[in-house]
Amino acid sequence: MRWKKISDAVIRRLPLYLRVLDELANDPNTQLISSQDLGVRAGVGPALVRKDLAWFGEFGKQGVGYEVKFLRDELRRILNLDSEIKIAIVGAGSLGAAFARYAHKRYADDSSFNLNVVALFDNDPGKVGTEIDGIPVYSANEMQERVRELQIHMAIIAVPSEQAQTTADRLVAAGVKAILNFAPVKINVPEGVHLASADLSLELQRLAYYLRD
Amino acid sequence: MRWKKISDAVIRRLPLYLRVLDELANDPNTQLISSQDLGVRAGVGPALVRKDLAWFGEFGKQGVGYEVKFLRDELRRILNLDSEIKIAIVGAGSLGAAFARYAHKRYADDSSFNLNVVALFDNDPGKVGTEIDGIPVYSANEMQERVRELQIHMAIIAVPSEQAQTTADRLVAAGVKAILNFAPVKINVPEGVHLASADLSLELQRLAYYLRD
Repeated sequence: MRWKKISDAVIRRLPLYLRVLDELANDPNTQLISSQDLGVRAGVGPALVRKDLAWFGEFGKQGVGYEVKFLRDELRRILNLDSEIKIAIVGAGSLGAAFARYAHKRYADDSSFNLNVVALFDNDPGKVGTEIDGIPVYSANEMQERVRELQIHMAIIAVPSEQAQTTADRLVAAGVKAILNFAPVKINVPEGVHLASADLSLELQRLAYYLRD
Repeated sequence: MRWKKISDAVIRRLPLYLRVLDELANDPNTQLISSQDLGVRAGVGPALVRKDLAWFGEFGKQGVGYEVKFLRDELRRILNLDSEIKIAIVGAGSLGAAFARYAHKRYADDSSFNLNVVALFDNDPGKVGTEIDGIPVYSANEMQERVRELQIHMAIIAVPSEQAQTTADRLVAAGVKAILNFAPVKINVPEGVHLASADLSLELQRLAYYLRD
């Protein structure tokens, strides 16, 4: 890892920049972008844009700005999105299945994502062996061997809370390095494995605070 | 608003504390909790726990800790979860429908949430007039009058990106004060309206960074 000490706050903003650059790359009239403009479009202050990007190299020219396609390609490379990332979703219930459909539609047509959901896992025998938008549903018992065989490095946990930690343990044992957790419970992973939480209940409870008059 | 200047970072941690307290409140043997223990269970440092709670009052006793049920009730009140919050979901596609089902199941059985999804909106005539787990799907054209009539103050946007801003504008015009945005696009809301983004693509792109060996 070349950029080990960069704060996660910086990493969180890179996909925002990438999204802006991806949109602009389709416009033949826009070949350059200033940090000012990139900042406004990404919702980030221009000084912060320059500071964030400077962690990874010198991408722009003073007074000229950044070359859109060059910077986009660099950001893709930095985020490891220049080669395919295979993802498993554990739990083919309503949330897991919906996210599989969403991801299939959203990422398949869009070359700026190299994210590919290749497997679902569930322990319901009625679901195992079926497909959701072409993505096979495997038995949860096969999780470890399938994850290894399919070279899956990223997984989404969409199982009930009480199964979330066991699921994470099995994914980690199989070699998964990054987990997005939908279950509304805190899970622990060893060092070297990265965890993001998509706990929507926490977001709604937080928003409720601001409803006060 | 009594606590106007409290940072959002503090507010984000309150639901984590509330979750721990809700679990402990079911255990008749645990009537008190130390900030140390509350911190460990919530994944927050104990000094930060004390500091966060001190913004809202004196809830604990030195050397004794916090009374579990009292602190839980206080946090519910602070987060406005002591009275029902009515939520609308705009977009009854796969993600919107899945979240409606999830919310119905999760929040209906759990008195610690006072979150209630009372309406879905869609512009597909095939969906309008149907129900998803008992939640009616209304026409998107009726959004403003229904939101007012049902006294909905919080909404979830689950429409395609290109419709997200218009949807937000209509919700705000109808009096919605808090929005959770699932659409992978930046939307703008006026001051006084609070916005949270549940952009899962950004989370996956961020996680991809950490896959580097």
